[in-house]
Amino acid sequence: MKKTARKKSRATKVKGRQPKRRVPAPKATKAKGPPAKRKAVRRSAEDRLQELRQRLLEISDLGAVGSVLGWDEATYMPTGGSAGRGRQSATVSRIRHERAIDPALGRLIDSLTRHAESLPTDSDDATLVRVARRDYEKAIRVPADWVERSNKHGSASYDAWTRARPADDFATMRPYLEKTLALSREYAGFFKPYDRIADPLIDMADEGMTTASIQKLFADLRRELVPIVRAITAQPIADDRCLRGTFREQPQLAFSLDVAARLGYDLDRGRLDKTHHPFCTRFGAGDVRITTRVREDDLGDALFSTVHEAGHAMYEQGVAAALDGTPLGGGVSAGVHESQSRLWENVVGRSRAFWEHFFPALQRLYPDQFQGVALDTFYRAINKVERSPIRTDADEVTYNLHVMMRFDLELDMLEGRLAVKDLPDAWRARMQADLGLEPADDRDGCLQDVHWYYGGIGGGFQGYTIGNILSAQFYAAAVKASPGIPSEIAAGEFKTLHGWLTNNLYRHGSKFTPDDLIERATGEPMTMRPYLAYLRGKYGELYSLPAAA
Amino acid sequence: MKKTARKKSRATKVKGRQPKRRVPAPKATKAKGPPAKRKAVRRSAEDRLQELRQRLLEISDLGAVGSVLGWDEATYMPTGGSAGRGRQSATVSRIRHERAIDPALGRLIDSLTRHAESLPTDSDDATLVRVARRDYEKAIRVPADWVERSNKHGSASYDAWTRARPADDFATMRPYLEKTLALSREYAGFFKPYDRIADPLIDMADEGMTTASIQKLFADLRRELVPIVRAITAQPIADDRCLRGTFREQPQLAFSLDVAARLGYDLDRGRLDKTHHPFCTRFGAGDVRITTRVREDDLGDALFSTVHEAGHAMYEQGVAAALDGTPLGGGVSAGVHESQSRLWENVVGRSRAFWEHFFPALQRLYPDQFQGVALDTFYRAINKVERSPIRTDADEVTYNLHVMMRFDLELDMLEGRLAVKDLPDAWRARMQADLGLEPADDRDGCLQDVHWYYGGIGGGFQGYTIGNILSAQFYAAAVKASPGIPSEIAAGEFKTLHGWLTNNLYRHGSKFTPDDLIERATGEPMTMRPYLAYLRGKYGELYSLPAAA
Repeated sequence: MKKTARKKSRATKVKGRQPKRRVPAPKATKAKGPPAKRKAVRRSAEDRLQELRQRLLEISDLGAVGSVLGWDEATYMPTGGSAGRGRQSATVSRIRHERAIDPALGRLIDSLTRHAESLPTDSDDATLVRVARRDYEKAIRVPADWVERSNKHGSASYDAWTRARPADDFATMRPYLEKTLALSREYAGFFKPYDRIADPLIDMADEGMTTASIQKLFADLRRELVPIVRAITAQPIADDRCLRGTFREQPQLAFSLDVAARLGYDLDRGRLDKTHHPFCTRFGAGDVRITTRVREDDLGDALFSTVHEAGHAMYEQGVAAALDGTPLGGGVSAGVHESQSRLWENVVGRSRAFWEHFFPALQRLYPDQFQGVALDTFYRAINKVERSPIRTDADEVTYNLHVMMRFDLELDMLEGRLAVKDLPDAWRARMQADLGLEPADDRDGCLQDVHWYYGGIGGGFQGYTIGNILSAQFYAAAVKASPGIPSEIAAGEFKTLHGWLTNNLYRHGSKFTPDDLIERATGEPMTMRPYLAYLRGKYGELYSLPAAA
Repeated sequence: MKKTARKKSRATKVKGRQPKRRVPAPKATKAKGPPAKRKAVRRSAEDRLQELRQRLLEISDLGAVGSVLGWDEATYMPTGGSAGRGRQSATVSRIRHERAIDPALGRLIDSLTRHAESLPTDSDDATLVRVARRDYEKAIRVPADWVERSNKHGSASYDAWTRARPADDFATMRPYLEKTLALSREYAGFFKPYDRIADPLIDMADEGMTTASIQKLFADLRRELVPIVRAITAQPIADDRCLRGTFREQPQLAFSLDVAARLGYDLDRGRLDKTHHPFCTRFGAGDVRITTRVREDDLGDALFSTVHEAGHAMYEQGVAAALDGTPLGGGVSAGVHESQSRLWENVVGRSRAFWEHFFPALQRLYPDQFQGVALDTFYRAINKVERSPIRTDADEVTYNLHVMMRFDLELDMLEGRLAVKDLPDAWRARMQADLGLEPADDRDGCLQDVHWYYGGIGGGFQGYTIGNILSAQFYAAAVKASPGIPSEIAAGEFKTLHGWLTNNLYRHGSKFTPDDLIERATGEPMTMRPYLAYLRGKYGELYSLPAAA
């Protein structure tokens, strides 16, 4: 889906190369030079806060610029652009990092601490100073040479992985992964002391969580989940043939985008494009884009990945305008973010009520494929539970087992119980134990996810399951506040739900810690109760399940 | 035309937000801190050259990043992105400017001057140091506060113009234009001493040209051109009804892009998108993009603007890889650049030989529209000469009169003979005198071009006519070297022409001055002889013309 009607913009005005501005255009800023040092003592707190905001805005803008480069790389960049783009992205990242660790920024934050402490704790300004300090102190702990080594290695490893995975070639990836593991351990070391080596890595993605708290959470969830999975997978697999067929691409994209817009994704501040792997990216409050992929032989792929990414995007679009351009101006943690994609994709988008409204439209769009298909058949198809070796293909019941297994394996590697060379076997054993199946090869085994081959080892997976748990907790809280939500959904109306989420989550951006935010929104700490009730209710209706423990 | 098959790229690998790199990724560089000062005396010339290249690469990359932001703004950015994008672009420009005027860069260039003078004048290194010095010395003459004022004013003026032009509202634009004039005069003042105030402005776009040299050139051309225009416009207007009709958008785009690729535009390093105003933009040797607009009721618009921009793009794609990322890695001047767009658009793309090959394909594409239309009818239609009040609608014969008139009017304003308030009348009078017609309003009069309302006054127009003149001169030199070129064109083959241009122009980037480049490529300085011969030959066949003076 490309928007073709575009307002006239500054960059469009020229036929050919002329005219251009004579000189590159700087912008007024107080961030030039080291003004904090120069006269921090004489300036008012408001002046210094203003400088802080300006410095943080520049850091935020450079981050957004990097995101634009990444979006373009993933969507439209011709193949020849790779080398230059890699360099341009690295340049922007380096400059952003230079700004983020500028000692003048540190002094400025210091000079504002007493003032911030005099403000109400929850005020935007007090939070801003606090979060700026946290980010600064984290950034300066990491030596530039580690960042450089890690960056170079990550690019090389990712590049190798793109070839090694299709070739089912773990041997090639082994030395890369060993180095990635070493780099991840080294990184954790910058944040000593810690209880467990994965703690700093987890905290980075899901502030406030630790190895121990996630282990407890996962053990508890596992205890409840495994019997449900066993009971379902012992029964006949749902018939989802109605989702296979030939679904032309354009109507799929149009329908998916219509659904996303109906849910509340604002297309004046967003757009949908195609990529190999769907993602959501934020350039600012006014521009939050999503991408999807389309399979003409599988209706669900584009549709549910679009709704999933629209969930991320609505969160980002809903952040209060006042927080835009600050470190508070974006979703708070991996888990809370994922809760929004999963809430819209699964709790809403795979509900019967939702399809009571949308299925007739889908039938009109693809009359040949859906003639004579009952709503109930379609509903069962989109909620089919089937053990799969691939995480991204997993249904919402078995998905968490994939996450837990990765979490445990990376902990074993980080804590020295599992050598990289033994990973493929360990993967197979765990897959067999948890899901009763074995991947045919490493391609669909321990090579399947990009995370370890690019992002590092540790902290990258738990957010998915935290998100599943929170999706039900937030939804239950919303329905408790507004019991009419389910019937609104059946009527294709989402304003009440979207409004509740905006009010209780989205608008706060990263102002509160995840724990704080969850408790403010739902009245209690994270709990898996609503999630289990959701699974039991939904899948109990679709399958016979054992009584709750 | 979107390319949908895309290679897997680093930014695409994530579903949702995770994983991401833990820390923004810096890149190895010698440009950090002021190393030139630190130990310039001890380091070898090669070390210092390496540092110079690294610094210039960073400046070039930041320029490319700004171009990506501009391309996105013009193609796909949702309306809500405007404010953030403006700020992000300004931030990147400002940082680029800071790097460009870094005193350490100046010292580094100083320290390399003796070494550069010991090298062969035409070597890449000697040229690099020379051009780096020229750019640095120009950049530091312009005070930051002027840049800031000009940037702010330009944005405001452009913004106002986008509304004032459709409203035919010159009164609103008058104060903006007065300030633009003042800023342009102030800018010229930074480059005192000069003979004429427009000289520094002209030199910026077309190095080596002056007010006086252009006035002479234009007077000479005018003397020859006016009788041709008079003779043609006294005759019946060609019938171009075959270009009007209904031409569906997608086939137009596909055909235009096929033609561009056939000419030599490399789609592995480029792409075509739609914008309000066609343009070409370079992010590096591996990524040079073009845009076009499409009118379903006018076949010529997308086709010829695509070929025009492809001409610019082939020039940029043809620059030697060794020059990429340096100030030499791009086309040399507005005039030489425009010569390539005009050569491909007009000399090649509106030639009879070209359409001997391509017209049958066009007939197959739009059988209803072109059934029974003879090649000759089509050829006459695409070369119709008709006086128009609008420069961008002008044919290749009358086009130069539009350029000359703008050049003279801006000179009158810069030199104080014409007040901004009198511009609309002066425009009408000159239009009447030169083309014998009067625009209905200021919208199609002095408000029609963006140049004065964004880029400044002075130096922005002469390149178009220089380009026309040079297009014929370069083409004649190529045909002289390879007389088979015209028959190759009739066979849809462009390799020899493209190869000659690459060898004699494109690969040199900005290594030589325009004058030097022209003489090296064609064996003589710029001359309008081939251009007049081209016009007389082509239009003499289409119309009866007076004998050459």
